[in-house]
Amino acid sequence: MPSEFEIIRRYFERPAPTALMGVGDDAALVRPTAGMEIAVSTDLLVEGRHFRAGAEPRKLGHKALAVNLSDMAAMGATPRWVTLALSLPSVDEAWIAAFADGLFALAARFGVELIGGDTVRGPRSICMCILGEVPAGEALRRDGARPGDDVWVSGELGGAALALAQPGIAEAERRLHEPEPRVALGERLRGRASAAIDVSDGFAQDLGHILERSGCGAQVQYERLPKCAAFARIAQPRLERKYVLSGGDDYELVFTAPQAARAAIDGVAREIGVPLARVGAIRAGAPTLSISDGQGNEIPIARGFDHFSA
Amino acid sequence: MPSEFEIIRRYFERPAPTALMGVGDDAALVRPTAGMEIAVSTDLLVEGRHFRAGAEPRKLGHKALAVNLSDMAAMGATPRWVTLALSLPSVDEAWIAAFADGLFALAARFGVELIGGDTVRGPRSICMCILGEVPAGEALRRDGARPGDDVWVSGELGGAALALAQPGIAEAERRLHEPEPRVALGERLRGRASAAIDVSDGFAQDLGHILERSGCGAQVQYERLPKCAAFARIAQPRLERKYVLSGGDDYELVFTAPQAARAAIDGVAREIGVPLARVGAIRAGAPTLSISDGQGNEIPIARGFDHFSA
Repeated sequence: MPSEFEIIRRYFERPAPTALMGVGDDAALVRPTAGMEIAVSTDLLVEGRHFRAGAEPRKLGHKALAVNLSDMAAMGATPRWVTLALSLPSVDEAWIAAFADGLFALAARFGVELIGGDTVRGPRSICMCILGEVPAGEALRRDGARPGDDVWVSGELGGAALALAQPGIAEAERRLHEPEPRVALGERLRGRASAAIDVSDGFAQDLGHILERSGCGAQVQYERLPKCAAFARIAQPRLERKYVLSGGDDYELVFTAPQAARAAIDGVAREIGVPLARVGAIRAGAPTLSISDGQGNEIPIARGFDHFSA
Repeated sequence: MPSEFEIIRRYFERPAPTALMGVGDDAALVRPTAGMEIAVSTDLLVEGRHFRAGAEPRKLGHKALAVNLSDMAAMGATPRWVTLALSLPSVDEAWIAAFADGLFALAARFGVELIGGDTVRGPRSICMCILGEVPAGEALRRDGARPGDDVWVSGELGGAALALAQPGIAEAERRLHEPEPRVALGERLRGRASAAIDVSDGFAQDLGHILERSGCGAQVQYERLPKCAAFARIAQPRLERKYVLSGGDDYELVFTAPQAARAAIDGVAREIGVPLARVGAIRAGAPTLSISDGQGNEIPIARGFDHFSA
């Protein structure tokens, strides 16, 4: 059986051209670009919780990196370097090879380098830590929303939750298993958006985090929210509302921006080819979210995904 | 039951004075010191593998951070910021509080800030990622050992492995459960040591990594190796040799340095109050380690800890 060190070398030691030292020492070494701040985020995916036993390893490699890239997108940071800590029940080389393929394919698209990691025997879980760079003072935080700002959403909502509940719908499955992190959008929102977050726990809950941190409320029109196209065919309005408002794992960006930035943001949407929908407005007052239907009636909001309460 | 977000806030959201943004956004934000390189390392500890079920949470909080600090020490880096991803089978607040206490007590001693993390429900495991700073070009790598260099070891070896095999020996238990990362030593070895590594998998295996990366061999005298004091009482030479040469988890530093640095290194030992033993020499040739006993006979070396083969 190959040793831990051989496995690491074979599958995870790839060139990391911008790192001074990648995999293979006590730590990796990187040189930050002058004038940049470093954004740091970590995500832990556990089998049976974030992915099912038997999940396709290539898609898992994609997703593990994608959720971390999404955190960088939500900060307006350019992702640069990641570490990977992998707990596996056994040395299944085919699994490891496919996982590495999925991860490195996405990493290559975003110019991200794997610079270090740890592999242990244990219940299957994946922990990544990502480092990105953002010009000093330009990060997209959660606490910058101001009354009068517009609320925007990228792409479409609810598809990942739909795929989890009803497997076999291709466009929803793709949202769940191979989410597309909105990195280019995050970078272009620097200096334009006043606050941003990615939709990992559900639109209502994640926008709620912006409201809490910013100390203001929001009014959103449900019919303006972009929805996974599959909902139109399924025609189950209650289920649609639940998944669109409270479904997690979509990895779209929810952000706020002054009204003066509307034309610029519409321009960004065209430039990068990602639809951006203006769905509501920030209001002065308590950090509560009000969502109204087409008749102006308030929609009650289900609680989003909480990793311990769910 | 408190939600995930409340738990995070209550136990892990502490002031991070040097971070621009700590826990509570999509990512943390830090500003690297000009002229510094960033050292990055990650470690994953899994219940049943790296710690037993029922392990004391305060000591676990200490150890999880200590092993990461030790990686910084081995690079000669000054530890600055850590992230914590925690998988727990349930919300046991007493456990979380004690774990946080152990972690933050050690973090405070080293001026390290917890800046981000993730908490999920799952099998108990702890994944930390650490960032440190080291002046450009001064990191202690594994590949710098040169023929003629001395081989040095800090502190003492074998205690952690002894505690694992024979619980109840106080000084050995402390080595296993509350290792003292050699951060001050690593910092003072900048510009003095030619290569360094921390002893996590066993002296012979870890020195072996230096030899492989540096492309040279080493000759070590067993009687010069510093040993946990408990071995003298136990008087089992074969067991002692096994644990001193191949026992993991001691988190001492093994390093090499030119002979011209001997006086300076002895001075470092006095200055920081950590014993440093000169145990052998780097030789030209194949990356093999030869260890001789008091009679000049070669000691066969058992394989160290491999996380997948063990």
